[in-house]
Amino acid sequence: MTARTTPPWPTAGLSFGGDYSPEQWPREVWHEDVRLMREAGVNLVTVGVFSWGLLERAPGEYTWEWLDEVLDLLHRNGIAVDLATPTAAAPSWLVAAHPEIRAVDRQGIVRQSGERLGWCPDSPVFREHATRIVEAVAERYGSHPAVRLWHVSNELGGGNGRCTCANSTAAFRDWLRAHHESIDALNDAWGTAFWGHTYTDFDEVSLPRGPRDGAPNPGLFLDAERFSSDSLLAHYLHEKTVIERHSAVPVTTNFMVGAASQTVDYAAWAAHVAIPANDHYTLVDDPRREQDLAAAADRMRGITRGRGPWLLMEHSTGGPSWQERNRAKEPSELVRNALTHVARGSDGALFFQWRASTAGAEQFHSAMLSHAGTRTRIWREVTALGRAMQALAPVQGSVVEPARVAIVVDDPSGWAVQSGLKPHRALSYARELRAWHRAFFDRQVLTDVVPVDADLDGYDVVVLPTLLVVDDATAARLSAVVDRGATLVVTYLSGVADEHARIRTGGYPGAFRDVLGAWSEEFTPLQRGERWSLDDGEVVTDWAEAVLVTAADVVLAYTDGPLAGRPAVTRRHAGAGDAWYVSAMLSDDSIQRLVDRIVADRAIPRTVTGPPGLEAVRRVGRDGSAFLFLLNHRADPVTVVASGTDLVDGSVHGPETIVPAGRVRVLREERAA
Amino acid sequence: MTARTTPPWPTAGLSFGGDYSPEQWPREVWHEDVRLMREAGVNLVTVGVFSWGLLERAPGEYTWEWLDEVLDLLHRNGIAVDLATPTAAAPSWLVAAHPEIRAVDRQGIVRQSGERLGWCPDSPVFREHATRIVEAVAERYGSHPAVRLWHVSNELGGGNGRCTCANSTAAFRDWLRAHHESIDALNDAWGTAFWGHTYTDFDEVSLPRGPRDGAPNPGLFLDAERFSSDSLLAHYLHEKTVIERHSAVPVTTNFMVGAASQTVDYAAWAAHVAIPANDHYTLVDDPRREQDLAAAADRMRGITRGRGPWLLMEHSTGGPSWQERNRAKEPSELVRNALTHVARGSDGALFFQWRASTAGAEQFHSAMLSHAGTRTRIWREVTALGRAMQALAPVQGSVVEPARVAIVVDDPSGWAVQSGLKPHRALSYARELRAWHRAFFDRQVLTDVVPVDADLDGYDVVVLPTLLVVDDATAARLSAVVDRGATLVVTYLSGVADEHARIRTGGYPGAFRDVLGAWSEEFTPLQRGERWSLDDGEVVTDWAEAVLVTAADVVLAYTDGPLAGRPAVTRRHAGAGDAWYVSAMLSDDSIQRLVDRIVADRAIPRTVTGPPGLEAVRRVGRDGSAFLFLLNHRADPVTVVASGTDLVDGSVHGPETIVPAGRVRVLREERAA
Amino acid sequence: MTARTTPPWPTAGLSFGGDYSPEQWPREVWHEDVRLMREAGVNLVTVGVFSWGLLERAPGEYTWEWLDEVLDLLHRNGIAVDLATPTAAAPSWLVAAHPEIRAVDRQGIVRQSGERLGWCPDSPVFREHATRIVEAVAERYGSHPAVRLWHVSNELGGGNGRCTCANSTAAFRDWLRAHHESIDALNDAWGTAFWGHTYTDFDEVSLPRGPRDGAPNPGLFLDAERFSSDSLLAHYLHEKTVIERHSAVPVTTNFMVGAASQTVDYAAWAAHVAIPANDHYTLVDDPRREQDLAAAADRMRGITRGRGPWLLMEHSTGGPSWQERNRAKEPSELVRNALTHVARGSDGALFFQWRASTAGAEQFHSAMLSHAGTRTRIWREVTALGRAMQALAPVQGSVVEPARVAIVVDDPSGWAVQSGLKPHRALSYARELRAWHRAFFDRQVLTDVVPVDADLDGYDVVVLPTLLVVDDATAARLSAVVDRGATLVVTYLSGVADEHARIRTGGYPGAFRDVLGAWSEEFTPLQRGERWSLDDGEVVTDWAEAVLVTAADVVLAYTDGPLAGRPAVTRRHAGAGDAWYVSAMLSDDSIQRLVDRIVADRAIPRTVTGPPGLEAVRRVGRDGSAFLFLLNHRADPVTVVASGTDLVDGSVHGPETIVPAGRVRVLREERAA
Repeated sequence: MTARTTPPWPTAGLSFGGDYSPEQWPREVWHEDVRLMREAGVNLVTVGVFSWGLLERAPGEYTWEWLDEVLDLLHRNGIAVDLATPTAAAPSWLVAAHPEIRAVDRQGIVRQSGERLGWCPDSPVFREHATRIVEAVAERYGSHPAVRLWHVSNELGGGNGRCTCANSTAAFRDWLRAHHESIDALNDAWGTAFWGHTYTDFDEVSLPRGPRDGAPNPGLFLDAERFSSDSLLAHYLHEKTVIERHSAVPVTTNFMVGAASQTVDYAAWAAHVAIPANDHYTLVDDPRREQDLAAAADRMRGITRGRGPWLLMEHSTGGPSWQERNRAKEPSELVRNALTHVARGSDGALFFQWRASTAGAEQFHSAMLSHAGTRTRIWREVTALGRAMQALAPVQGSVVEPARVAIVVDDPSGWAVQSGLKPHRALSYARELRAWHRAFFDRQVLTDVVPVDADLDGYDVVVLPTLLVVDDATAARLSAVVDRGATLVVTYLSGVADEHARIRTGGYPGAFRDVLGAWSEEFTPLQRGERWSLDDGEVVTDWAEAVLVTAADVVLAYTDGPLAGRPAVTRRHAGAGDAWYVSAMLSDDSIQRLVDRIVADRAIPRTVTGPPGLEAVRRVGRDGSAFLFLLNHRADPVTVVASGTDLVDGSVHGPETIVPAGRVRVLREERAA
Repeated sequence: MTARTTPPWPTAGLSFGGDYSPEQWPREVWHEDVRLMREAGVNLVTVGVFSWGLLERAPGEYTWEWLDEVLDLLHRNGIAVDLATPTAAAPSWLVAAHPEIRAVDRQGIVRQSGERLGWCPDSPVFREHATRIVEAVAERYGSHPAVRLWHVSNELGGGNGRCTCANSTAAFRDWLRAHHESIDALNDAWGTAFWGHTYTDFDEVSLPRGPRDGAPNPGLFLDAERFSSDSLLAHYLHEKTVIERHSAVPVTTNFMVGAASQTVDYAAWAAHVAIPANDHYTLVDDPRREQDLAAAADRMRGITRGRGPWLLMEHSTGGPSWQERNRAKEPSELVRNALTHVARGSDGALFFQWRASTAGAEQFHSAMLSHAGTRTRIWREVTALGRAMQALAPVQGSVVEPARVAIVVDDPSGWAVQSGLKPHRALSYARELRAWHRAFFDRQVLTDVVPVDADLDGYDVVVLPTLLVVDDATAARLSAVVDRGATLVVTYLSGVADEHARIRTGGYPGAFRDVLGAWSEEFTPLQRGERWSLDDGEVVTDWAEAVLVTAADVVLAYTDGPLAGRPAVTRRHAGAGDAWYVSAMLSDDSIQRLVDRIVADRAIPRTVTGPPGLEAVRRVGRDGSAFLFLLNHRADPVTVVASGTDLVDGSVHGPETIVPAGRVRVLREERAA
Repeated sequence: MTARTTPPWPTAGLSFGGDYSPEQWPREVWHEDVRLMREAGVNLVTVGVFSWGLLERAPGEYTWEWLDEVLDLLHRNGIAVDLATPTAAAPSWLVAAHPEIRAVDRQGIVRQSGERLGWCPDSPVFREHATRIVEAVAERYGSHPAVRLWHVSNELGGGNGRCTCANSTAAFRDWLRAHHESIDALNDAWGTAFWGHTYTDFDEVSLPRGPRDGAPNPGLFLDAERFSSDSLLAHYLHEKTVIERHSAVPVTTNFMVGAASQTVDYAAWAAHVAIPANDHYTLVDDPRREQDLAAAADRMRGITRGRGPWLLMEHSTGGPSWQERNRAKEPSELVRNALTHVARGSDGALFFQWRASTAGAEQFHSAMLSHAGTRTRIWREVTALGRAMQALAPVQGSVVEPARVAIVVDDPSGWAVQSGLKPHRALSYARELRAWHRAFFDRQVLTDVVPVDADLDGYDVVVLPTLLVVDDATAARLSAVVDRGATLVVTYLSGVADEHARIRTGGYPGAFRDVLGAWSEEFTPLQRGERWSLDDGEVVTDWAEAVLVTAADVVLAYTDGPLAGRPAVTRRHAGAGDAWYVSAMLSDDSIQRLVDRIVADRAIPRTVTGPPGLEAVRRVGRDGSAFLFLLNHRADPVTVVASGTDLVDGSVHGPETIVPAGRVRVLREERAA
């Protein structure tokens, strides 16, 4: 990763706004929009997503007037534009003329019109048409003063990932040729001798198709996932190249980085975006959704490898519409959600979307401006947030205080854990990450959620939750943190398979058993409802292993069940470093106790000392300024030791401050020089 | 709706019988059939459904002998025939020769042979062959004295609704051309700017295809539903026209009207049938299935707009075979079920089917004559019912006493509620209707379940359960009942969307917020298992809204949860009228209390005063005669104030009568002139 | 069934080993394999399954060297080979060149590459290629001294059963022509008049396709199942014929016989295998999986009609990988599982597989040699089992002591119970079999689980669990056991349908109501969670009937519910014989009491008298030697009256012996001459 210069940020001050779709409204509404945007403090809107069919109503025939007018109107009102290339939805005439551009999913079902991102990223026909519209848009608006950021397409992969059409199949074969020295090398890497799948030519390989719970060769599966990510990235890079022929404005695309599972490997994409941007939505039935959000933000920071501020491109003001029961947000949850992202490194908070649509698939999705308009709680909270964002201008450009704990998350491992025939087919990759992240979160200890190839030098604690897929060199690099005196926490299934998803023999977890001083002879997943007790008084569910210790101490052992008396958690001391093996799915309480012990052992300071649900993160400026974000997700007020001036309301605090229930304080701290 | 003359009823006295399939049995059985039909009091049977392959074993080659013989035999024995055109199942030779006639569902799956109604209603090839056989049947039997009713095909739409084949796609585009002034008008109506689906030509529009939980454009979805209904109706009308070229006998087709959800919009079909006919089956695990049945019958009466008696064409004597655990009916449930339909307006009670089949998909479906024959409880109850139907001959031609309460049910709203991305994707349209209907049912207050375009002049109370889709003019007409001094009850989601499924802005429920004097700023659906308390001691589940009152009183308010202190139910008084807004999913008890209050406020008399589960409905003749149906669905006897002579057993009652547990009384009342 | 000579057994002594896939490993591992095989006592391995692509890398170009070397190595080390024809997986080049060989399932989905058994058994192209490779393998190795058994393909039907491609459709029509005298006879047999499916030509018939819960004509469905079984059998027979042109070594194929449900009708296949072989895996969440295993073994013995020892070809040492949570086996469960099969007639115990794969779909499946190698519990138990198998050599060739109880299991009945529209669509055919088998198993009473055409002469008790489909002659033969003084137990749904799945009229169960002296007028399935009480204090769930008694005594009657006072279980005495009708789904306790009564009535001796979970089976040699297998599946030691010398550890026992918890004893008994 080479150092890179930070591009100009699209707004002066933190960015605030959302997706703006004037094409869904008559012109008279546009003026009301801009007036209300100003009232709310909006300074950045994303325009043009899904506008292809309106800009180009027949091949090569463009209609720019409405967009000219919108951009001019916004510019006149001081609102910057994040201009989208409109390729997320192919125009109806294109799909009608070229149905072969449609993506085909892993069940062999052709994506239908009436969706979005229904096109195959490997389609030469689509690419040709996409190039033309992108070129036309970039040429026309590449120097427009309103345009401060380019937004390539939209959520690439959300609909067109994992295409299995003929074009994708051909592209996959080429990708395989580039990634395997020969067909025999591929046969060896994938172990195709099993079930007699030996190939004699790359052209015999097909993308995996079958039922959702099918079991393709694990190596094939993993390469197909990697190919899909690379193929979508290639599309992004193509559009970026076209834009850059006509514009010097920075280019990005909106990621969909969540706590764990992802459609593509954004850790590989991030180097190619000028300003990393993310869309994040919580699951309404998640009781700890504020922590999911924090984990996603911490991961976004990890993916961008500390390049500085990133941009929250989409989140919601209230209920989404794609879940079963789209819960409204609780009072002030909107503000807390936005500021969690800011606290964790976003220099802005944008929403999908500005004005709630009255038609279309997402007509019931919440927005900054509800169907009911401005006389609503949402509008009051949006405008309050807008004021807060303006007050937080001093935070711009500061970075999140360095974390001393890293949690490693890896897309290939996530893909592999949740596919194929596994010892336990119902494991969730995100669950384990979330469990460990939560234990630090509830102690106000910041964690970076980093890719597997991240630089780990600065961390005192490195946690590997179910890092199933890892190559030898990476495993050695991860293990080396123990040698330099840090703590490594390895949880079950980590290091079991290599980069081709081949299992390492000789005892699980193959890649880490030496550093751990412990190994397992057999996996012993628990049945639904089954619980085995530990000597800390807690229980293990879902996953256990028959562990043997070679050079480690037993930290937790089973007190009943078939493994009674055997270790569940072990620790090996190696000089100043130590290596923990957590071989079982522990309860939240067990994990909390382990984390507390590790935090104490390593003397890792808490940002502040508060109860669980009090979130605390510090951002620091180049000038030494420090901003302490305190978010109280609890239903009662919290008092913590903290001093400074609240940027939002100007109040002065110290040596203690009370954060009212549900509220946020951002204290500019006076720090001893 | 023009006035129409009542066609001649197919039987003298109430109709009694069922589907009769002599083609499944050797000739010797036919004579036993007729003997037993006479024993049971059968006077009408439906013949010929699914007989195409036997009547026309090769194109244009007919075999009439067996059907001639059957009709003659029935006629000689005084049993009238409801003759079906045999188009419900295409003959095997036709499917083999023309596989393109098969319907294709919304998942793109071609209907297979081995089913029924597997043909596309938009197929010209099918239409051509269907025309030939219908013409031949009508020509041969159009004047046969046994034939007293024509039965077009069977349950049209039950298998071939929502076809998405190429023929249907072309027909849909024509339908759109006829229903939208231009493609731009369509773009505007559907809001296609969302997700970039703007069309430049009608030929770019496709019928929605995709996963069952997919999210097509809501306007497209609604028009596709309407088109499917119209397309099936067109098929019916075509067959009707062919028949009428050869026969003066009335033509009908069997609807599938249930409490709520429907395949087609029967409110639009009903004008085109000479004698409205319905098939109704209960769900065996429905604990209040007698009320489902009553609601369906009340809806059948509403759909037929008070044209007088309709005909129950199919129901079951015992367990069906298409449910998971096909419960047998309880003792006398068969009799009660049949007489609920008669009480509520059917001048007959027919079953699927006369004799239980030994083969075929429905071989385990119950029948009037079981596999075990005549020495069965079912046969005893069937013959008892037959005697009762004969004794009820005086009821024939009478009509159900006018209801003072109307519940509005609307197919487009039902289609919309249960599709696409909604605030709560698991809402059941039927659930809300059933809940309100039940509260009146359990108080012996008759309700008409009417289409949205029904004349509401006569009603003191009008209930709109989740009437999501409604145009402005209709909303105004519905609201006007308040102006004339009646009670309007509007429940959540009503009036939120217009006829194109576009959301009205300015506060929910857009179409009714003025008449209600209340509005919501945000929907706040509850999670599974979540409950918020009301100040009536009951709880809200599933649905709530953040309501604000402008000109209404708060009737019920939340006592906990995020809406604590805010209104759940409001009432606006406007002169003599009032308008209730029920913004939440209430418990049965809460609804019962509201209904009791409304019934008291409007002084709506109960037919009799009995406990829940005692059903009471009155039919009145043109001569002033009155027939009080008392059905006791309870496990204990019920005493009510009622006088008259029981038509069934001749007993005389008054001033009270006891209705034994599970039994039915039909009292001919002496009414003061 | 003609008498047949027993072929030479592949090993001297019991067979012990597993599937061996040297092609997945480098040559150096082969030598370790052989060394460890000897250490473990392995004397038979299955080689070559899935090796087609490695043996023939292009059409007609063979690579034999590696296989030559493997066979020679094994032979030199005294390990016999069960050589597989490699047709279970078509080579990639063949699928690429001829995609039309792929099977198409009942949902119309084409099987994809990346699976196994993806080919259609009716494909002439596949047959041609398969013939060539089988011929080549048989020619090369037909006389190799290592090869002691031929293993045709692998688990035929496990992937390619029920193909609906064009080739299969054509073959099905031919099959129908051969099995029905005319199309009219077919129409009559299937009752196609229902739903108008009358055929005029065999070429109009298609194989059933549609959703998994669809409802094809029951006669069509049953014939399609029979055809699929016959078609797969024809493939087996073809390969067998080819092999026998080049080799005198016995030919078999591995069945997948479980307690009940099966892909093909192995009762018809068994006559065609030289040594019957079976694969069996337990369901890890089955709390009585040891009994499932015993039932499967008893069925294997039944299917092979007492021809003597059979061979357990595959089972697992630990967790499988195709279930959700692949539980490891409990301590000694591996040994008990293997010896249950031996006790019940297998002269060997083989595993899938020798060495755990590191790649491929089943990379996490357990094996004799785990990923962790020899320092594991599994290896210790495998080698202990190997020693035990050697010690059990005297058992070889002995047969299981004749059972006095037969339970009849029938594939067509199983297929029919679990398909189509049934009174209760969630019934499990296996459940009823398991319930009755368990009651005998827990009393140490041996049962034979036999096909419906088995010779029943020797049995005192014959149980027919839900034998839905039965022809008249068979029903008469089954009923005749009562005439000769034995006990017949008939459970619900038995005899309801004939061999074409047509229902018998006149009262259920049509085929048996005379022998039972009882009949039902109506099925009354219970709803989920519903329970009706019996006068034995137990409850009925799921299934009940309205029974009338004509010539039987009431054994159990309902005490509540709609059938209160009516019979649930009846018994008719007829001379020395008696016939029980169990018309309801009883609890395990109710069944146990009935079985205890029947066992007492017929004075059927228990093998030993022990508590439930103590398994006891005796094998007897031609020389009068007797081997008593005692397997303690309990967590506590069990003491039983038994004498003899333990073949495994040489200990001497009598007059009592203690079987420790979880352990097995095999006593060579001294029997009085």
